[in-house]
Amino acid sequence: MAKELKDLTKRADNYSQWYNELVVKADLAEQSAVRGCMVIKPYGYAIWEKMQRRLDDMFKETGVQNAYFPLLIPKSFLSKEADHVKGFAKECAVVTHYRLKTDPEGKGVIVDPEAKLEEELIIRPTSETIIWNTFRNWIKSYRDLPLLINQWCNVFRWEMRTRLFLRTAEFLWQEGHTAHATAQEAQAKAEEMLNIYADFAEKCMAIPVVKGVKTANERFAGALETYTIEAMMQDGKALQSGTSHFLGQNFAKAFDVKFIDKNNKLDYVWATSWGVSTRLMGALIMTHSDDNGLVLPPALAPIQVVIVPIYKSSEQLATIDAKVAPIVENLKKRGISVKYDNADNKRPGFKFADYELKGVPVRLVLGPKDIENGTIEVMRRDTLEKQSVAFDGIEDYVAHLLDEIQANIYDKALKLRESKTYKVDTWEDFQAQIEKGGFILAPWDGTTETELKIKELTKATIRCIPMGCEDEEGKDMLTGKPSHRRVIFARNY
Amino acid sequence: MAKELKDLTKRADNYSQWYNELVVKADLAEQSAVRGCMVIKPYGYAIWEKMQRRLDDMFKETGVQNAYFPLLIPKSFLSKEADHVKGFAKECAVVTHYRLKTDPEGKGVIVDPEAKLEEELIIRPTSETIIWNTFRNWIKSYRDLPLLINQWCNVFRWEMRTRLFLRTAEFLWQEGHTAHATAQEAQAKAEEMLNIYADFAEKCMAIPVVKGVKTANERFAGALETYTIEAMMQDGKALQSGTSHFLGQNFAKAFDVKFIDKNNKLDYVWATSWGVSTRLMGALIMTHSDDNGLVLPPALAPIQVVIVPIYKSSEQLATIDAKVAPIVENLKKRGISVKYDNADNKRPGFKFADYELKGVPVRLVLGPKDIENGTIEVMRRDTLEKQSVAFDGIEDYVAHLLDEIQANIYDKALKLRESKTYKVDTWEDFQAQIEKGGFILAPWDGTTETELKIKELTKATIRCIPMGCEDEEGKDMLTGKPSHRRVIFARNY
Repeated sequence: MAKELKDLTKRADNYSQWYNELVVKADLAEQSAVRGCMVIKPYGYAIWEKMQRRLDDMFKETGVQNAYFPLLIPKSFLSKEADHVKGFAKECAVVTHYRLKTDPEGKGVIVDPEAKLEEELIIRPTSETIIWNTFRNWIKSYRDLPLLINQWCNVFRWEMRTRLFLRTAEFLWQEGHTAHATAQEAQAKAEEMLNIYADFAEKCMAIPVVKGVKTANERFAGALETYTIEAMMQDGKALQSGTSHFLGQNFAKAFDVKFIDKNNKLDYVWATSWGVSTRLMGALIMTHSDDNGLVLPPALAPIQVVIVPIYKSSEQLATIDAKVAPIVENLKKRGISVKYDNADNKRPGFKFADYELKGVPVRLVLGPKDIENGTIEVMRRDTLEKQSVAFDGIEDYVAHLLDEIQANIYDKALKLRESKTYKVDTWEDFQAQIEKGGFILAPWDGTTETELKIKELTKATIRCIPMGCEDEEGKDMLTGKPSHRRVIFARNY
Repeated sequence: MAKELKDLTKRADNYSQWYNELVVKADLAEQSAVRGCMVIKPYGYAIWEKMQRRLDDMFKETGVQNAYFPLLIPKSFLSKEADHVKGFAKECAVVTHYRLKTDPEGKGVIVDPEAKLEEELIIRPTSETIIWNTFRNWIKSYRDLPLLINQWCNVFRWEMRTRLFLRTAEFLWQEGHTAHATAQEAQAKAEEMLNIYADFAEKCMAIPVVKGVKTANERFAGALETYTIEAMMQDGKALQSGTSHFLGQNFAKAFDVKFIDKNNKLDYVWATSWGVSTRLMGALIMTHSDDNGLVLPPALAPIQVVIVPIYKSSEQLATIDAKVAPIVENLKKRGISVKYDNADNKRPGFKFADYELKGVPVRLVLGPKDIENGTIEVMRRDTLEKQSVAFDGIEDYVAHLLDEIQANIYDKALKLRESKTYKVDTWEDFQAQIEKGGFILAPWDGTTETELKIKELTKATIRCIPMGCEDEEGKDMLTGKPSHRRVIFARNY
């Protein structure tokens, strides 16, 4: 592991390679034998579980209930919403048969040609269609609304170019699907869920995000409005970290979901959907980590504190063991996850490098000298600062330090984003700036045509029209046509 | 809902229909538009989540870590273990294409014939193959062992005859996969996990189970030994509720997973796998429920206590609201999930029937008379007994009652099983008894031939060779050949 760390590419040398290596070296995930599908390793999965648990609690506090819908979707369902099928047909995994058999010609096991399905089934790329087909039977009257459903599951999109966590054919996610009596209520729910995502990103993942609205061109296939949270990675590129969609009555109409309103009138139901995925793992890694490995926010670290003993004899180790035991117990009582690593088969230097690579927020080191002096060595992963502090009251110190680290890495990421966010008004400046990375706030004439032209010329996309910003009259930097607001351009993951 | 309850078929009239109706009426699950795939509704999913959480904690206490492996498995992987492919090839969902396209002849969306996969992919029916292919890179030396991995996921088996929860094409489960340096250690792990399943079934689900070993004929495809827990449903039929397999070196050999042992010798790794699924929901429903609906063990009930007010005026309701608020708060403080249903749009009688149908363990009813008398009405779902008890200290009473209900439904199920377990020695008695249901402890000559003959003649299978029973010399009831132990015969789900 120590060797592996030494081999980690530096961010400044090749940011993309640094990321790819780090995901594997830190035991988060690896490629599988199946094209584009990853294996999420125990350490990576433990982080994902913490994210799930926290989000799930947040959803449930708003009245959302979990349920489970089928993995497979009849091909005809996908076609019922015109934009939706356009968006997903090109990357579908299609099930056509339901049996294998032994090849009569001795070529091993083959697909049984007699077991062909009448209608092909698609592995869900997202579940709007199968869920709205189900909602038809659940919703009869306004009394059944709002219906607030979420599912945690796997989805599949046949991506051509994949990267661990960031873009994989199969990924894990949650998808929320809600049904409402009015457009206003659905729209408000879509915004509420976006706010939950933003809160989660900022408070739990320590990632500052910009909340905004997607342009028509970047909207979810089948949505009237897509809300997004956009984060900036250390290389200045954007990463879309969560989306929430106001679907209008599109899916209700496609699947004939009507309800009787309070005035006894029949109307189609209004819908939202919203999701975050294992992609967030990519955002987490790329926002905070450094050339020594992962940097994890304490709120999501599977191990928050590691304690390493320094000793030359088993007597010394026994003394240290005895001193450490109550610290472990006290930290656990406070809900802090702590590991005491007194394994004898690895040197301290190896352990240090390994826990740095894994992003453990706080490391405590205790040796005979410390015991003599009544001190303990504390290293914080975010700044790599070491300090000798009083042994007594170390639990308070650590608890406080964890909070400080959580706040510090958020601030650091925010400062980076601020330092790489630019107001640009001319096409010349835009072209120069986009090569250097960052978010560019620039005027835009509001047309898809211009948006696509800029993308073609610079690989920059409109990440979002930021929410809560004032209107500002200006001129589109490319076309010179009137612009009423600045939007965020960036290259993105 | 009250009407729906009235319509519930009685167990005595048609047990099978009673089950099918109850699953739907109690809002646990329903058929989906996809053949054999169910929708797990929020109330059913909430129970499953409680089961997951508890099992997951139990696994983690033994050092098991969660991870995630791909949904899709290359066809060739399945073939690498000879028994395994025989067991699963006949019911595989096969992915052959990765794209849809618009039909040039205008027939809507079709499978793109140009997007055919070189090698077909199978939706996992179980993950031994893909996991052991991954383990090859994770295991080099005895220091990497034991490797204790679990995943929570969906699996797919193209079952021809499906029933909600009991047998569905797609189901949710956990599958544990462990790797060990010795046969003894692997065998011990397989038994340890079976004991965890038995503990969970008995303490949490309140279902008594028999622990046993499967016959060769009933073994998991690829295992050397399959351990099982078998439960008896109210109709006397058996339901296999969890299995744990000692896989020997079969998968290590198929996927070439070797390790260097302490003596520097290269050897194949020893394996186990073990799983329980949403099938347990079927066991839970069929073990405890009655003609009024679900009976849930308090340990798994999403709502443990419901409080219903009886009132004629809004003043009365306000008085009751005020009396109930501290009870709700106190119960929640004790970790008891409680719902105060003062919704105005449903009559008390409707609420009573609904919460009975949903299996809420304890119902409290408070009206003006109770307040006058300083009492509150308590109804326990398991016995349907109503009692008026002192209002003061009701929290203690309820907490104690929940424990009592948990114990009582277990005892009831155990008594039923005992009353329907028979020792039988002759073929004549066996034939008569098997028609009446129940577990039959009978001598067996140990051959698959006899086992299959008995199944053919009576539809009874050997559920298991019970563990911890004494050897007993006898004669096989069908063939008259020597038998050394009694085994359990039963018809089964």
